[in-house]
Amino acid sequence: MSTNKALNSLVWIAVDWGSSNLRAWGLDKDDQVISQASSDKGMLSLKANEYEAELLRLVGNWLPATGQIDVVVCGMAGARQGWLEAAYLPVPTRLDQLSLGAVTPMLTGSQLRVYLLPGLSQTRSATTNFDVMRGEETQLAGLVAETPGFSGLACLPGTHAKWATLEAGAVTQFTTYLTGELYQLLARQSVLQHSIGNDDLNDAVCLDAFTAAVKESYEAPEAFSSRLFGLRAQDLLDSQLPAGKMRGATLAARLSGLAIGLELSGACRQRSNDEPIMLIGGQALCHRYTVALNTIGYQAQHLEGDKAVLAGLRLAHHAL
Amino acid sequence: MSTNKALNSLVWIAVDWGSSNLRAWGLDKDDQVISQASSDKGMLSLKANEYEAELLRLVGNWLPATGQIDVVVCGMAGARQGWLEAAYLPVPTRLDQLSLGAVTPMLTGSQLRVYLLPGLSQTRSATTNFDVMRGEETQLAGLVAETPGFSGLACLPGTHAKWATLEAGAVTQFTTYLTGELYQLLARQSVLQHSIGNDDLNDAVCLDAFTAAVKESYEAPEAFSSRLFGLRAQDLLDSQLPAGKMRGATLAARLSGLAIGLELSGACRQRSNDEPIMLIGGQALCHRYTVALNTIGYQAQHLEGDKAVLAGLRLAHHAL
Repeated sequence: MSTNKALNSLVWIAVDWGSSNLRAWGLDKDDQVISQASSDKGMLSLKANEYEAELLRLVGNWLPATGQIDVVVCGMAGARQGWLEAAYLPVPTRLDQLSLGAVTPMLTGSQLRVYLLPGLSQTRSATTNFDVMRGEETQLAGLVAETPGFSGLACLPGTHAKWATLEAGAVTQFTTYLTGELYQLLARQSVLQHSIGNDDLNDAVCLDAFTAAVKESYEAPEAFSSRLFGLRAQDLLDSQLPAGKMRGATLAARLSGLAIGLELSGACRQRSNDEPIMLIGGQALCHRYTVALNTIGYQAQHLEGDKAVLAGLRLAHHAL
Repeated sequence: MSTNKALNSLVWIAVDWGSSNLRAWGLDKDDQVISQASSDKGMLSLKANEYEAELLRLVGNWLPATGQIDVVVCGMAGARQGWLEAAYLPVPTRLDQLSLGAVTPMLTGSQLRVYLLPGLSQTRSATTNFDVMRGEETQLAGLVAETPGFSGLACLPGTHAKWATLEAGAVTQFTTYLTGELYQLLARQSVLQHSIGNDDLNDAVCLDAFTAAVKESYEAPEAFSSRLFGLRAQDLLDSQLPAGKMRGATLAARLSGLAIGLELSGACRQRSNDEPIMLIGGQALCHRYTVALNTIGYQAQHLEGDKAVLAGLRLAHHAL
C-alpha cells in the first residue's frame, strides 16, 4: 500500500527491509515522515535482482520528476542472501558510524541512490562468543540518536533476542538468545503442541503462571529441559489447572516464562540491577519482558521499535 | 515380518508397543525367546479397535490350535490414545508390582489374554514436579530383574530422556528431559537447520566438539539459548571450522553436546559421582551419554534396552 502522489517535499527515503516484510518512509528536509508504504516482500521472498523493482513499486510514485533520492536501508536486504551483502562491522562499533560500512547496489534506473547498512559481528574471545546481528544495530543507533553517548544494557526481544552492552554510544559486545524461536518450535511443533494455547498477560491466572515460571527458570536454568516436559505432564495430571481455553493459555504463559527466564538467567545474572535495562521493540513484547525483568528485581525502560529504527536510519543518513 | 509356523513350545508373548512401532517376542516355558516379529504400526498409526487385529497379524500363526496365550504389553498401547488406558501408577512404585496396574482390553477372539502394563506418574511436591513415563517403567523393571533390590540412579536416554531414582527395587522419583526432541527440532526445523549435519563421535574433531560443548553447557546452563544461536554465528564467522561435510558434522556434535550438557546439569549437579549411573537403552545413544558423563566426571554402566524390556516383561508375567 502506498500513497499515490509525487511528493514535492521528499528529500530521502528510509527503509527497514526484514526477512518477511518491507517498510518504507518518505522524509522531508526536517526528517519528518511525509509518507509510508509496506509490503510482505521480505528477503525470504526475493531474489537479488528483484529488490530494485519491489522498492520502486512501493515508492516510485513519491519520486520527483528529476534528481536523485537517497534511500537508506537497514535489515536483511544487506545480508548475504539479500540484495547485496553489506559485510558485518566487528564490535566494538560506534553506532553513529554504521554508514562507514554501507554498500551501494548497482541499479538499472537513476532516480535512486541506495545505501545498504551493515550488521554487526562479534568474534570468540575469553569473554565473548561468535555472534551476529543485522537490523538491530540500526535500532540501537536509534537509541543513541535519542540519547547520545548512551551507556548501559539494551535488549531487543524477538525471535532472536539481542542483548547489547553500549558504552558511550558504541556497542562493545552483544549476545543473541534463541528465545522467541524456541518458544515457537516448542509451542507449535513439539510434544507440547496439543497443550499450549495462546496466553494473555492481562488475565491474572496467566500472569501468575508467567511470573512464577520466569522466577523458576531464572533461579534454576539447569532444569529448563525438564520443565518443558513438565508442561505436558502437568496438562495430563494437574487437577488444579483450569479447563478449556484457559488451560492452554495458562500453559502457554508458563512456557513463555520458562523460555524468557532462561534468557534472563544468562543475560542478567552477572549484571547489577542499579541501572534499568533499555528494551527496544514492539509494545506487547516489551511489556512481557518488563514484567519478566520486574519479577527478578530489574527495572526496564522502553523505546518503541519503529521509533528506534527511524531514528537510527536518520542518524545514518546524516553521516552519509 | 513374522516366523511362519505354529510354535508348540509357545507359552506366552511379550510385546513392546511404542508410538511408532510394535515388537513381539514368543517365549517358551523357560522364558526363552523362540520367535520374534515387528511392524511399524505404533500407537500413532492405530485406532483403539485396530490393535487386536494388528497383534494377530503379527503373532497369529505362532498360536496353538487350542488354549489361551498370555500377552504382556508395555508401552503406548496402554496410553489414553492407545488400545485401552492403563492408568499411571504413582511413584513411589515397586517395579516388580507393575502388573497390579495392568488392564485387560476386550477381545473379539479367545486365543489371547492381553495385559497392558501401566506407566508411572509423579505429582508436584516441594522436591518433585509433575511427570509421567510409559514404557520406560518396564525397562526399569528389567534392571531390577537383572539386579534385584537395585538402588541408584538410572537414565534412559531418548527423545524424552528419563532419569529415575531407584531404592531397593522401587522408583521413588523421576524426571523427564526433552533433550532428544529439542535436538531434533533445533537441528531440523530452526534457524540452525542449514548448519547442522550428522555427527560421528568416532571422528576426533566431532568428539572434541561434543565433549567441549557438554562441559560448557554443564557449567553454564544459563547460556544455553545463547549458545544455540552461537552455532549459526559460528557457521558464518569461524574460519577455523572445517569445510564441507565435516563442518555440519562438527556443529551437530556441538549442538548434541549443548543439549546433553544442559540435561546433565539438571540431573547430576546435586548427585555425588561415587556410584556409576545405569544407562538403559540402545548402544549408540548410551555410548554418547557415557562419553558425556565421563566428561563431567561421572561413571556409567550400560544395560542394553532390548534386554531390559524383555527382562521387565518377564518379571511382570511372573507376577500376573
